[in-house]
Amino acid sequence: MGHPEQVSSHGRSHRTADIGFARLDLDRETRTGTPEVVYAAGKTPQQTVDCLAALLDGGAGLAWATRVDAPTAAAIRDRWADAVVDEEARCAFVGELPRPTGQVLVLTAGTSDGPVAAEVAATLAASGVGYRRVDDVGVAGVHRVLAVAPEIADADVVVVVAGMDGALPSVVAGLTDRLVVAVPTSVGYGAAFEGLAALLTMLTACAPGVLVVNIDNGFGAGVAAARIARSTQGMTAQR
Amino acid sequence: MGHPEQVSSHGRSHRTADIGFARLDLDRETRTGTPEVVYAAGKTPQQTVDCLAALLDGGAGLAWATRVDAPTAAAIRDRWADAVVDEEARCAFVGELPRPTGQVLVLTAGTSDGPVAAEVAATLAASGVGYRRVDDVGVAGVHRVLAVAPEIADADVVVVVAGMDGALPSVVAGLTDRLVVAVPTSVGYGAAFEGLAALLTMLTACAPGVLVVNIDNGFGAGVAAARIARSTQGMTAQR
Amino acid sequence: MGHPEQVSSHGRSHRTADIGFARLDLDRETRTGTPEVVYAAGKTPQQTVDCLAALLDGGAGLAWATRVDAPTAAAIRDRWADAVVDEEARCAFVGELPRPTGQVLVLTAGTSDGPVAAEVAATLAASGVGYRRVDDVGVAGVHRVLAVAPEIADADVVVVVAGMDGALPSVVAGLTDRLVVAVPTSVGYGAAFEGLAALLTMLTACAPGVLVVNIDNGFGAGVAAARIARSTQGMTAQR
Amino acid sequence: MGHPEQVSSHGRSHRTADIGFARLDLDRETRTGTPEVVYAAGKTPQQTVDCLAALLDGGAGLAWATRVDAPTAAAIRDRWADAVVDEEARCAFVGELPRPTGQVLVLTAGTSDGPVAAEVAATLAASGVGYRRVDDVGVAGVHRVLAVAPEIADADVVVVVAGMDGALPSVVAGLTDRLVVAVPTSVGYGAAFEGLAALLTMLTACAPGVLVVNIDNGFGAGVAAARIARSTQGMTAQR
Amino acid sequence: MGHPEQVSSHGRSHRTADIGFARLDLDRETRTGTPEVVYAAGKTPQQTVDCLAALLDGGAGLAWATRVDAPTAAAIRDRWADAVVDEEARCAFVGELPRPTGQVLVLTAGTSDGPVAAEVAATLAASGVGYRRVDDVGVAGVHRVLAVAPEIADADVVVVVAGMDGALPSVVAGLTDRLVVAVPTSVGYGAAFEGLAALLTMLTACAPGVLVVNIDNGFGAGVAAARIARSTQGMTAQR
Amino acid sequence: MGHPEQVSSHGRSHRTADIGFARLDLDRETRTGTPEVVYAAGKTPQQTVDCLAALLDGGAGLAWATRVDAPTAAAIRDRWADAVVDEEARCAFVGELPRPTGQVLVLTAGTSDGPVAAEVAATLAASGVGYRRVDDVGVAGVHRVLAVAPEIADADVVVVVAGMDGALPSVVAGLTDRLVVAVPTSVGYGAAFEGLAALLTMLTACAPGVLVVNIDNGFGAGVAAARIARSTQGMTAQR
Amino acid sequence: MGHPEQVSSHGRSHRTADIGFARLDLDRETRTGTPEVVYAAGKTPQQTVDCLAALLDGGAGLAWATRVDAPTAAAIRDRWADAVVDEEARCAFVGELPRPTGQVLVLTAGTSDGPVAAEVAATLAASGVGYRRVDDVGVAGVHRVLAVAPEIADADVVVVVAGMDGALPSVVAGLTDRLVVAVPTSVGYGAAFEGLAALLTMLTACAPGVLVVNIDNGFGAGVAAARIARSTQGMTAQR
Amino acid sequence: MGHPEQVSSHGRSHRTADIGFARLDLDRETRTGTPEVVYAAGKTPQQTVDCLAALLDGGAGLAWATRVDAPTAAAIRDRWADAVVDEEARCAFVGELPRPTGQVLVLTAGTSDGPVAAEVAATLAASGVGYRRVDDVGVAGVHRVLAVAPEIADADVVVVVAGMDGALPSVVAGLTDRLVVAVPTSVGYGAAFEGLAALLTMLTACAPGVLVVNIDNGFGAGVAAARIARSTQGMTAQR
Repeated sequence: MGHPEQVSSHGRSHRTADIGFARLDLDRETRTGTPEVVYAAGKTPQQTVDCLAALLDGGAGLAWATRVDAPTAAAIRDRWADAVVDEEARCAFVGELPRPTGQVLVLTAGTSDGPVAAEVAATLAASGVGYRRVDDVGVAGVHRVLAVAPEIADADVVVVVAGMDGALPSVVAGLTDRLVVAVPTSVGYGAAFEGLAALLTMLTACAPGVLVVNIDNGFGAGVAAARIARSTQGMTAQR
Repeated sequence: MGHPEQVSSHGRSHRTADIGFARLDLDRETRTGTPEVVYAAGKTPQQTVDCLAALLDGGAGLAWATRVDAPTAAAIRDRWADAVVDEEARCAFVGELPRPTGQVLVLTAGTSDGPVAAEVAATLAASGVGYRRVDDVGVAGVHRVLAVAPEIADADVVVVVAGMDGALPSVVAGLTDRLVVAVPTSVGYGAAFEGLAALLTMLTACAPGVLVVNIDNGFGAGVAAARIARSTQGMTAQR
Repeated sequence: MGHPEQVSSHGRSHRTADIGFARLDLDRETRTGTPEVVYAAGKTPQQTVDCLAALLDGGAGLAWATRVDAPTAAAIRDRWADAVVDEEARCAFVGELPRPTGQVLVLTAGTSDGPVAAEVAATLAASGVGYRRVDDVGVAGVHRVLAVAPEIADADVVVVVAGMDGALPSVVAGLTDRLVVAVPTSVGYGAAFEGLAALLTMLTACAPGVLVVNIDNGFGAGVAAARIARSTQGMTAQR
Repeated sequence: MGHPEQVSSHGRSHRTADIGFARLDLDRETRTGTPEVVYAAGKTPQQTVDCLAALLDGGAGLAWATRVDAPTAAAIRDRWADAVVDEEARCAFVGELPRPTGQVLVLTAGTSDGPVAAEVAATLAASGVGYRRVDDVGVAGVHRVLAVAPEIADADVVVVVAGMDGALPSVVAGLTDRLVVAVPTSVGYGAAFEGLAALLTMLTACAPGVLVVNIDNGFGAGVAAARIARSTQGMTAQR
Repeated sequence: MGHPEQVSSHGRSHRTADIGFARLDLDRETRTGTPEVVYAAGKTPQQTVDCLAALLDGGAGLAWATRVDAPTAAAIRDRWADAVVDEEARCAFVGELPRPTGQVLVLTAGTSDGPVAAEVAATLAASGVGYRRVDDVGVAGVHRVLAVAPEIADADVVVVVAGMDGALPSVVAGLTDRLVVAVPTSVGYGAAFEGLAALLTMLTACAPGVLVVNIDNGFGAGVAAARIARSTQGMTAQR
Repeated sequence: MGHPEQVSSHGRSHRTADIGFARLDLDRETRTGTPEVVYAAGKTPQQTVDCLAALLDGGAGLAWATRVDAPTAAAIRDRWADAVVDEEARCAFVGELPRPTGQVLVLTAGTSDGPVAAEVAATLAASGVGYRRVDDVGVAGVHRVLAVAPEIADADVVVVVAGMDGALPSVVAGLTDRLVVAVPTSVGYGAAFEGLAALLTMLTACAPGVLVVNIDNGFGAGVAAARIARSTQGMTAQR
Repeated sequence: MGHPEQVSSHGRSHRTADIGFARLDLDRETRTGTPEVVYAAGKTPQQTVDCLAALLDGGAGLAWATRVDAPTAAAIRDRWADAVVDEEARCAFVGELPRPTGQVLVLTAGTSDGPVAAEVAATLAASGVGYRRVDDVGVAGVHRVLAVAPEIADADVVVVVAGMDGALPSVVAGLTDRLVVAVPTSVGYGAAFEGLAALLTMLTACAPGVLVVNIDNGFGAGVAAARIARSTQGMTAQR
Repeated sequence: MGHPEQVSSHGRSHRTADIGFARLDLDRETRTGTPEVVYAAGKTPQQTVDCLAALLDGGAGLAWATRVDAPTAAAIRDRWADAVVDEEARCAFVGELPRPTGQVLVLTAGTSDGPVAAEVAATLAASGVGYRRVDDVGVAGVHRVLAVAPEIADADVVVVVAGMDGALPSVVAGLTDRLVVAVPTSVGYGAAFEGLAALLTMLTACAPGVLVVNIDNGFGAGVAAARIARSTQGMTAQR
């Protein structure tokens, strides 16, 4: 593994760890509040392990990978016996989870949206933000949405995970002054077009206050929700 | 204008009026419950007038055109002083409207969906079916939908007209055992893609009981709703 | 399993069974005429079994799942020895099928459309509606369509299942005053684009009276046809 | 205007007329049976006139342009008083039309498809091939198609022009051993997507024997039909 | 104009003003922190005026419309002499703007993105949130982005408006722990596909912390940014 | 197996064999020159065998299936020991191939287009039409196309099979007065979009005289080429 | 107008001129060999004039705008009497054109591609690179391409501009070792999809050595060709 | 295997080796600077081996295949014990690699883009062009890009390989006067649409000087970069 390189720009430190096939951004947490997280899809198990090791060597208290499949999970556990793997979320963690502050509400429209919601939740946990998750409150039974009004009112931000018609964020955003982070999922078939239908629905939501991430991008939704929750709690990264 | 030709097939009469550029289906009402209706888009005003005249000559009590622009409307009024033009719906009628039976509820998500809802309503009126129209009950204020529950319960069928996210039919279909005919509109911009977003939402509605027509196709929704309302009222075309 | 929760809204009972990963809508049949049906795709076999059990515990006489693959079918049979699995339709039923009333005609354009037609039929059977199925009457031999004119005339509603060019509903709708529910299938290759070609054909059918569901959505077509057949037979859900 | 350049390749003469902005293929008729035809869209009226003049100077007995708008038509008439402009087809001809042989049947699904059918007909006339045109025989009244069976049987090839659902070629191809040349048109709205729906329908026609051209491409359909009709009549270009 | 109707649900007041073609949500500000805003596209000038009047009658201190074209702007000024029209943003305001708190940074990639950024700014102003706007800092000259690092560090949230390649949010999100609200615009041609290219870029941004709104949706971005800025400032709507 | 049913329409015999899941068109060869051919994709091996048997029982001298995979091929060979399976073309034949007349030239742009060209060839053979096949003459080495000019000149019709850029038909059509039947293939990756790029290229070919079939549709191209070759040879189906 | 700001980064000077709505990159020519060029689409005539003035004030010897419409051209001529406007290319130049070195060959497939080729040529001229333009050598008459082989052999790089099927670059790239810069144009209709067909053809060209720019992007092709021609001539920007 | 055929055209030799299923272009290197390279996808292992053998028989010093899977790699090694297989790049080489001249810089945005960059590198090596590869410098940490400014300045041309948002080429092109060859990859999920998002980003790059190849087309990028590097080094193929 190479030695961390350091580039100074605009008064900020930008240390990177060059391990040949990857160049890890060791100061991303300092700059952005979230560390560089390893995206395991398209990497070999060994590459993912090497990236996690480089991040830990670079000083991270918690190193973390998403889109972890079974062989990669096994390779991580082989290297670090105390690694935690969240199978529903397909995430793996090495190190200590921070204590949570703030409160994010994570809603799903249906049971099949669960794995994406789990990735949101895992991301929040690793980012030191608290959450509550309520599943299967899709608009086909709109009273189920109305029943969670108290939870919506208590949240710093609401993450809504939905596939098929993706209609849930429109309804939720009309009930609250909280920001709604909408996550389309690839749940559905035919004209769902692998999540495109839900994505377009959320982008054209008739209620303002909805912001959208990529299809199945629980990680991105979690990072964004954590930024909002932290700033609502008066916490910011060092500037 | 040519004479009606007659083709006998399977014991049914199939008279057509051949007027050169068009071959009008004079017995469509007998066969299908709805007469041939003139689609004025892509026709010259004179062609539309000629088609209406051929239908009246063929024995229709009411001849009728959709997608009527201003010059065509003027040409129709010139020919038949008592023609009725519905400008919101862009429809024109020559002859007597039938007495309405049954009850269709027509809902719109927003004010801009009005012209399509008007085409639904005009089609129902011309088909001899009663209707009630309630506008601007989109899901951004879901209590507005809940407030029309009594009207939904009284209807033979519910037509829901919505653009942008097209989420309203999913919510309505979860509230009733009536069939929901969903009409996506081209209202919206950007990722609404001229009605594609609403169309996909409606096709992937998480609540069953939703059937979909083409974007902005108020006429098709009206014909379908009329068929259902008539059969619910125990009326059928002659078999 | 959690206890059913109850939310009262607009004079209707909305009992749900919260089993953690799912929140089942126990009164959906009372409200909409069709019970909540378990969509097994994206659920583990155990989750599907748990959902069915919760519905039966909640008082359902018949609990029912669609998109059931072989492992899920086995898990259902393990739990309920008398469960009925329709392999062509990929549906599983636990409990008593209702006695059928009314008559729906289910047509397919080709043999490969069979599984989707089977899902339509299974849905009708579970909904207490009678049906007749006639296969392989595509428009490449249009006399085959004309030959079923008597069956079309006898039906309360016609469901037409077609892939590839999806042209059959246009022809059928021109022959009848019955509503035509069109189901595009993913049969075909190349420019069929997994059912998109058939979907667009049906949405732009030149004959009115055609309503469309999602690609391969036999369940949705069956629920809609059942609603129409029941209202034609003078039956409605309790209002 | 430049002098014709001549390139000899594989024993064939390839004379071109270089007029600066265009390089006209003077021997295309000798090689392919159809002369170079001027596509007026995207050219100034003067450019179209110059191209026609170059073709005539190069020895053509008939020079010819498609997609001719009003200003271009006027410019052509100004230059050649005896030019013939077909306004429905948007074609202009300078010179003598050949005597027709063979017989092509041109069908349209609806009146609005007329201008494209007119371009087919004009192309056939300019190519020396006879045709018969029958309009408005769409599948919404399938007996209208069956009624033209005798004309189909008499044709060397059948050109079918249809927008919206584009279903007519599938039905026609099932009735005949003649080749069917299918022309999708941009007639329709919403999910017709400017002719895409009809194009996909025709490409996935369930009856074999259907070949497809670009949307609204009456010219291409006419050239192809002429090639088939000529070879059926035993006529070929010089080889 | 109709009288406000009132629906009580879950302890919240839901007053609506039914003016026939529209049903205005008078308590949306109380529920969501943003009042119902009139979307003038697809409405007649008179309809927009009537909606604004109804909102003012319903008690709003500030009534407000977006997508206001010139005739609508004139109609608003005719009715309310002191109305303020922001022509770049195509917004009109009747009433008193609130005092701004908080700070949102609005960046554009290019000059042509200006009108959308103006809509963001107008929305923030009407929502009582302060902003700073810096234009033309696209990544083709990445030092321009780096030069605004101090402004980024001072903001509660950053709104980035970009067309063409839409690459700016990816770069900005890597520099800060603030949330980035990305607004794709329809600036560009060809493969920009009216903003689709920028939209996809932003949805797939390689840096987390980016949330996306619809193409050209400055209003939605402004509402979302206002929600975040207010919660960062410790302000919430009444719960 | 059911008995053949007979429908008389317009003086033609329309016998069908109803075998439950399929309704075979026994007189299609008489009407259209090509018998009903079994499309094996989406059918079980047993269903394909049953269809072939029904066609033979109905009097066919040659019964034939396309898109035959290995298990289906085995099932056919089990039933008919003398069945011929063309593995490259994925076609199976039971019965006697007719004697070939006429001459079709089949060109491929690259080696990977071979299986589709083989389906063209098999279809021609089964249709009693002669062919010559020349592979790998793509435009990247345009002299390879020019070298086959003599074969092009001798053909009744030219079938061009090409994936990736699909440019070959444009070049060939400029060299001949023969009709060019263009077959896009799904060869390629990325922006080839499973054959879409080649399909669009062929539809927009700058040389007229090109007609197009569905992606990978060697069967359709073969049937169409056979129709043209037969009529060029003065042969027609009985009228 | 603001004063130029200066940012020092990695030893390079980055002066910008901040004129409020734009922030001009005064050292782009030094860094990249091409100055910042004003994209006039989406700017008011006055904004374009102000940008040009700022560039000249910043020291440019030649300031230059693309996508210049008639009102903008007039505004430029009003401000600078000696401005040169190329109407075919829709470009305007203020200042002195550099002396050309090197040689780029610009080919068009058809006359309608002329304006895009003109933008390529204008860009080359403004970049100090020589060019030769040959129009209308599309593959429908492939001998026209072969006839320009000598010009291809003499060029430093070949720019090929083509709409419709976009097949010309594939043929040219197979004839030379020069790089081919392919420019798809929006010429064509129907399945040309505003240049998408040509774009996909060029991206999937079966001959390597083809690089592609955006649809109608003559400017981008010109800048790229200039970079290659300059490096071939041994000229580089200061490093 | 057939004997090489020879076609003389425009003074150039065009020898081809006809081996039945393929017709290899033996003089492509002489004409274009790059030999015909075997695209192994869609070919059997034996076909790829036969093609390589024919190229070697035709006189090539180095024969070479891309998109080589494991069975094909094994077949090549079986035939030629000294064949070199680059597994990351999926390329196989038989013969001697040329000595490299010139310098191409190959950048990747992320680790998952590695295999495509490897194909670029392998193509450069086989083309006799030197390269340097730097991985994982995506714009989420823009300082990583700035840190490679010296390498960019030293290169003859820069190849940038990026998936997801594909934003890296826009940033690089703004830093240099070198041509940027942009390679979109299929890395990413959801709205990345298998590389479409990155492709559109690169086509609409706001910085000029970017040229684009097909998604994942490392081979095409390598050939193009080699052409530029060679001409920059003053080397050309024989003309």
